[in-house]
Amino acid sequence: MSGDFEQIDREFLDDFATLSSFGATPAGGVDREAGSPADLAQRAWFAQWLTDRGFRVHTDDIGNLFGVLEWVPGAPVVLTGSHLDSQPLGGRYDGAYGVLASAHAAHRLNQKVAAGGWRPRLNLAVVDWFNEEGSRFTPSMMGSSVFTGKLAGSAALATTDAGSVTVAEAMADSLGQPWPTPVQSYAEIHVEQGRILEDTGVTIGLVTATWAAQKFDVVVTGEQSHTGSTVMADRHDALVGAARLVVAVRELAERFADAPLHTSVGRFDVLPNSPVVVPREVRLNIDLRSPDPAAIVAAVDLLRTTIAAVSVEVGVEIDLALSHAWDQQPYQAAGVSLAAAAAERLGLTHQEMMTIAGHDSTNLKDQVPTVMLFVPSVGGIAHNEGELTTDEDCLAGVALLSEVLTDLCSEAPAILR
Amino acid sequence: MSGDFEQIDREFLDDFATLSSFGATPAGGVDREAGSPADLAQRAWFAQWLTDRGFRVHTDDIGNLFGVLEWVPGAPVVLTGSHLDSQPLGGRYDGAYGVLASAHAAHRLNQKVAAGGWRPRLNLAVVDWFNEEGSRFTPSMMGSSVFTGKLAGSAALATTDAGSVTVAEAMADSLGQPWPTPVQSYAEIHVEQGRILEDTGVTIGLVTATWAAQKFDVVVTGEQSHTGSTVMADRHDALVGAARLVVAVRELAERFADAPLHTSVGRFDVLPNSPVVVPREVRLNIDLRSPDPAAIVAAVDLLRTTIAAVSVEVGVEIDLALSHAWDQQPYQAAGVSLAAAAAERLGLTHQEMMTIAGHDSTNLKDQVPTVMLFVPSVGGIAHNEGELTTDEDCLAGVALLSEVLTDLCSEAPAILR
Repeated sequence: MSGDFEQIDREFLDDFATLSSFGATPAGGVDREAGSPADLAQRAWFAQWLTDRGFRVHTDDIGNLFGVLEWVPGAPVVLTGSHLDSQPLGGRYDGAYGVLASAHAAHRLNQKVAAGGWRPRLNLAVVDWFNEEGSRFTPSMMGSSVFTGKLAGSAALATTDAGSVTVAEAMADSLGQPWPTPVQSYAEIHVEQGRILEDTGVTIGLVTATWAAQKFDVVVTGEQSHTGSTVMADRHDALVGAARLVVAVRELAERFADAPLHTSVGRFDVLPNSPVVVPREVRLNIDLRSPDPAAIVAAVDLLRTTIAAVSVEVGVEIDLALSHAWDQQPYQAAGVSLAAAAAERLGLTHQEMMTIAGHDSTNLKDQVPTVMLFVPSVGGIAHNEGELTTDEDCLAGVALLSEVLTDLCSEAPAILR
Repeated sequence: MSGDFEQIDREFLDDFATLSSFGATPAGGVDREAGSPADLAQRAWFAQWLTDRGFRVHTDDIGNLFGVLEWVPGAPVVLTGSHLDSQPLGGRYDGAYGVLASAHAAHRLNQKVAAGGWRPRLNLAVVDWFNEEGSRFTPSMMGSSVFTGKLAGSAALATTDAGSVTVAEAMADSLGQPWPTPVQSYAEIHVEQGRILEDTGVTIGLVTATWAAQKFDVVVTGEQSHTGSTVMADRHDALVGAARLVVAVRELAERFADAPLHTSVGRFDVLPNSPVVVPREVRLNIDLRSPDPAAIVAAVDLLRTTIAAVSVEVGVEIDLALSHAWDQQPYQAAGVSLAAAAAERLGLTHQEMMTIAGHDSTNLKDQVPTVMLFVPSVGGIAHNEGELTTDEDCLAGVALLSEVLTDLCSEAPAILR
């Protein structure tokens, strides 16, 4: 099937197949949460891949893995990358595509430099950000948050998983020293995880902004009792209260027809979770996202009204605590223009769009000019073993990223970090 | 406070305080699931208690713990007991009261025999049934189910807890040989776990029957996707489907005003349970109980209609599988009369009532004549650290059980098992 591709394209596809074998699941996905044996194994493979091609490998103090090409001693770097970790039963492309695309693009530039065909003014480094997914260790985007100073490294290292293992323990053999090199700009390519590009038949998404989001931690507190003998009127059933919240959160999405509103509950823990005990407590998260921050504010107002009603009707306490919030945030317009021009030169169809999902680039863009690119996701399937991006689209993305990185590395150095 | 009690009553209260120290929780309850260190420790204490008072201790092949008083060599036994295991963060009285009441009642009878004041015609054995609660290892009433041949011992031993530990492993040092002694009758005393006795100001409940029940295992299957980027219309959210079921199950109870219907969901497991992933699967149980079996049948019909609607509206599959069912089942009327007469002799107020909760006696009554007694639960609180039965009511129960066992042990032997 890949017989028609050029040699460098075949190499990318072969490497991607190898990468997809780490934590491979029978249904064609991958399961390699941050710091798991599968994650550590793929990191070792990736570090060797970088070393074999002349990159200097560096692991920092939160487990971000860098491959550095130092062409201009002392100059700032252009960073490019994404993340290799996945959700439980996740897809092959989410994050991993971007890391390997970055590595191949950087390798192509390095060969051009070695052949004397191009003289960059900045250095280039590929990065696998630690724990972007946040499923095992919360919060998500942990590595890029520590790198950009948004999260204290000590707090991140002390974070525990469900089995009380800390990040420091899981990554004990994979932590190094901070990497204080000045960063001039950042570029990331990722699968869209939606179906806008597929629906419009366009190959490249140029990300202009993130949707706004508010995320909440919720605790519903009732009273433990016997499922058989406790009369219904005496019950304070935390699960009934929490279930009514889940239904209400879903219905919120239908009340905002003009500004799309995405609403979700993904984590939901019941105590004591025994078949003959009325639950005393449920802990859950609520995730609200929209391109229009005002829609989220209005949705939260409706949610608070629902919470007050459910508390009274079910006889439970409901505590709603904001855990994360961000406004609609733009990526630098100059980066969007640079990427659009590069796509034009390669003859790739492209369109501007927003990202709904968070990415490591949302952290980086607050520090340095950042280019964020999407390639299509077949059917928009994401966080699912059935994720797919066609080989052609994957390769178009590597070609475009190579072009973008060439432009970024050709800029005059400036001390930005 | 117990200064006004007789010596034998003080001994009971002191022993109950000691028993309540195993797995004691700060809020005044106990946490000693079947086969846990706290359960094994209390079993060792109880076995020593029995040995010290001349009982022969026997542990059978599923971990039921017997204390035998063999007064009449070769005669069948009257069995009496309950269970020492508890729910997570459970109460001190549920099960443990009945085991200790049985032991003290048996000890009193043994002292009467030793003093030459009474000649029984049957032997007497106290029992702690293994794993009545079923919170760690499902199903509940495991020990009495194996003893009465309703559940295969091999299947029970292979049951695993959430950490994949089997019953055989948890009980490795606490398993013995089967105990094939013929049983003539069974008596159990338990806290009511409801507030009927408290509301009517009566001390003793004479249990005439169990409520009917149907229990279901439910699997809701959706599709894993990204909570941010997946458009709402593309979602197949197993948690939304399951939450709508929980709400519907609660509302069923309100639709049966004439025949009380108790409806519950106690166990509820979400996969993958990650904050940024739309859940692909929820597993839950549904528990429906009523004195009127027809009300349960009608409720299940309504439930199936709801399930069909939720499946279509949410885009999930819902599989409903019956796991347990029983009709309203009577206890032997002769046992109720015997216990009523005994209560009369002691001047204890009493009334007939049904049990909503299942007990080990519901297994035994299908094999042998069985007497089931209740004492009041303050506020009807059950499966909760706040469970309370007053000292006076506890002691009245021990006195009544002693009287009932005297009558049962005075009967002519018959081969019943």
